[in-house]
Amino acid sequence: MVITLTTDFGLTDPFVGIMKGVIAGRAPAATIIDLTHGIPPQDVRAGALVLRHAVPYFPTGTVHVAVVDPGVGTERRALCVETGTGYLVGPDNGVLSLAASAGTVRRIVHLTDERFFLARPSATFHGRDVFAPVAAALATGTAAAALGVETGEMLRLDLPEPRTDGHEVRGEVIYVDRFGNLVTNVGRDVVERIRQRTVTIRVGPASVTGVAPAYGSLRPGEPGAVVNSWDLLEIAVRDGSARDRIGVGVGAPVVIDVR
Amino acid sequence: MVITLTTDFGLTDPFVGIMKGVIAGRAPAATIIDLTHGIPPQDVRAGALVLRHAVPYFPTGTVHVAVVDPGVGTERRALCVETGTGYLVGPDNGVLSLAASAGTVRRIVHLTDERFFLARPSATFHGRDVFAPVAAALATGTAAAALGVETGEMLRLDLPEPRTDGHEVRGEVIYVDRFGNLVTNVGRDVVERIRQRTVTIRVGPASVTGVAPAYGSLRPGEPGAVVNSWDLLEIAVRDGSARDRIGVGVGAPVVIDVR
Amino acid sequence: MVITLTTDFGLTDPFVGIMKGVIAGRAPAATIIDLTHGIPPQDVRAGALVLRHAVPYFPTGTVHVAVVDPGVGTERRALCVETGTGYLVGPDNGVLSLAASAGTVRRIVHLTDERFFLARPSATFHGRDVFAPVAAALATGTAAAALGVETGEMLRLDLPEPRTDGHEVRGEVIYVDRFGNLVTNVGRDVVERIRQRTVTIRVGPASVTGVAPAYGSLRPGEPGAVVNSWDLLEIAVRDGSARDRIGVGVGAPVVIDVR
Repeated sequence: MVITLTTDFGLTDPFVGIMKGVIAGRAPAATIIDLTHGIPPQDVRAGALVLRHAVPYFPTGTVHVAVVDPGVGTERRALCVETGTGYLVGPDNGVLSLAASAGTVRRIVHLTDERFFLARPSATFHGRDVFAPVAAALATGTAAAALGVETGEMLRLDLPEPRTDGHEVRGEVIYVDRFGNLVTNVGRDVVERIRQRTVTIRVGPASVTGVAPAYGSLRPGEPGAVVNSWDLLEIAVRDGSARDRIGVGVGAPVVIDVR
Repeated sequence: MVITLTTDFGLTDPFVGIMKGVIAGRAPAATIIDLTHGIPPQDVRAGALVLRHAVPYFPTGTVHVAVVDPGVGTERRALCVETGTGYLVGPDNGVLSLAASAGTVRRIVHLTDERFFLARPSATFHGRDVFAPVAAALATGTAAAALGVETGEMLRLDLPEPRTDGHEVRGEVIYVDRFGNLVTNVGRDVVERIRQRTVTIRVGPASVTGVAPAYGSLRPGEPGAVVNSWDLLEIAVRDGSARDRIGVGVGAPVVIDVR
Repeated sequence: MVITLTTDFGLTDPFVGIMKGVIAGRAPAATIIDLTHGIPPQDVRAGALVLRHAVPYFPTGTVHVAVVDPGVGTERRALCVETGTGYLVGPDNGVLSLAASAGTVRRIVHLTDERFFLARPSATFHGRDVFAPVAAALATGTAAAALGVETGEMLRLDLPEPRTDGHEVRGEVIYVDRFGNLVTNVGRDVVERIRQRTVTIRVGPASVTGVAPAYGSLRPGEPGAVVNSWDLLEIAVRDGSARDRIGVGVGAPVVIDVR
């Protein structure tokens, strides 16, 4: 059984390793895979996006643990979401919501049964004390329903949707990756619809024409557009960083002019 | 069998991966878990602290390898410490000492038997040539006593202890985590003793009153105090960095005034 | 079976985790080991060097995947190189070439059989869509020859060789590690040949005399020379960074004066 971990803990402290120790003791046969621990501190939306775009590539039954949890120790609930393909475990602050599209959710369980937690859980590290042992329980065959009380809803993030307005599609940058690529909320479907037309894309002071088939088709050092591996329109600079070159980040408006 | 790795090697070079290759060849069934490779270069005390607070969360029999080793290639000894719960493997420079409290040590072995090392060990990378193969030997059933010569002592780090002086408890910052939280040497026991009293905590130019139950109980942007997941008093800024906000780091005095 | 991953993807995004998800679904029994994901973006030579110096420490049959791939989605080929000790999988841009010395190559296969790829591979993320599933195929027993069309050659990197000129050996810095150590292209064989002589090594404004047996033999804070764990001459500063201290990096000339 596979357990994935997504956190904002970084890798300079032993927090992630400690979670793995808890899992190794309770589910020794589980395979633990790091999605990333580089979510910016407390950036729930980045964690939710990462999870949404990674979950489809994991085998059925995988347990995905996401701990971006500024409200740890307060009244925010701990959840397990059972979907058609696996489990999502984490705080009820939206971090699980983008990977749990409404049609795929089978069951949402409020994690109330403390028998599945470490003894005397702390108020500051539920990754270690609640989410890791619950993931180990799921990976060793405990049913999600046994972990607590079924609940009808979870906190859902509102991700901005692109708007089409005459000749224009207006979206925004929702994620910036390590290469400095600017990932937008404009999906492949929109791009496919306008691919035969003349397209000019403006973001910050930059303007690019057309959508290239791959990074390697871009002119070195110049901003260009591709549809990326998440099926989203992305502004990239070949052999460089679009973020640094263009000087914008998450939230920057992206305007596509279609003629 | 679980083997953990703690080093100051970072993750941009292949040094950690190479250690894992050596282990995979000699102990293919072992599960390797990274505690962290982000110990500041040559910071033996940070490595020792990380190990102390992580070891209790691992299953019995785990082999913990710690390589923060500025003296590699000199006369410093290589050790295996057998405790009641597992094994600690690394240089005799104190990095193992905080996880090996006196009462739990069963045996200290000076690693002298070169049959357990890689052939022709280098003078610069004992993580690969000595500690990884020794960990693999332990994980595949070699007794600690077989690895070398038993020895009576190891180098122990002196960690500063908090001092109580009338109305004051004086401690210091001993670790700063990735969130910028300032971890002190003041334990939960001290905090429990003074929890019913009026407490003012001063660190650098900042002053905080009381100890909150969790990060989420702090006022956003303001320094506050919690007992952290290591059972130590910690100065934190909710949704921010106490290190950046207060401008202090490891070694800064922390004064608790109790009324 | 062991699969290693070497990329320039970094660890702040989920790209590496997604590759592991693909492998976990197709080769659940494989052990995945990260060599490093900290190759500087698009630095094919750094990836090739890392692979060359890590591969010898892995068990026979290991599948090494290297994705430093600025040409993804263009005409550059995808390759599997079968050697006497395992497999190298990645783009045909030289990243595999330093680990595949001519004498050890048994077969070079152009990866053309799309049945081994993910359905509908993207043009931007062959790590996920091509190289991860191909590695899983190899790890589960697929013969390299079955993955595509055998080919006679691959793109090979020219790594600068040191030149001996009278009393001088002239080399250069080819890699800088996380400690700031300056790794040169001058091999242990050259150093052994001149060890009995008086040797002065100049790099940037620094000049060091002799080659020390280990880092611990250097004077703290002063540049010195050692033969490192890759059997290469290295300029290091004990308890410090030679890169920062001397102010040079990859490509800097290194002149050894032998008397």
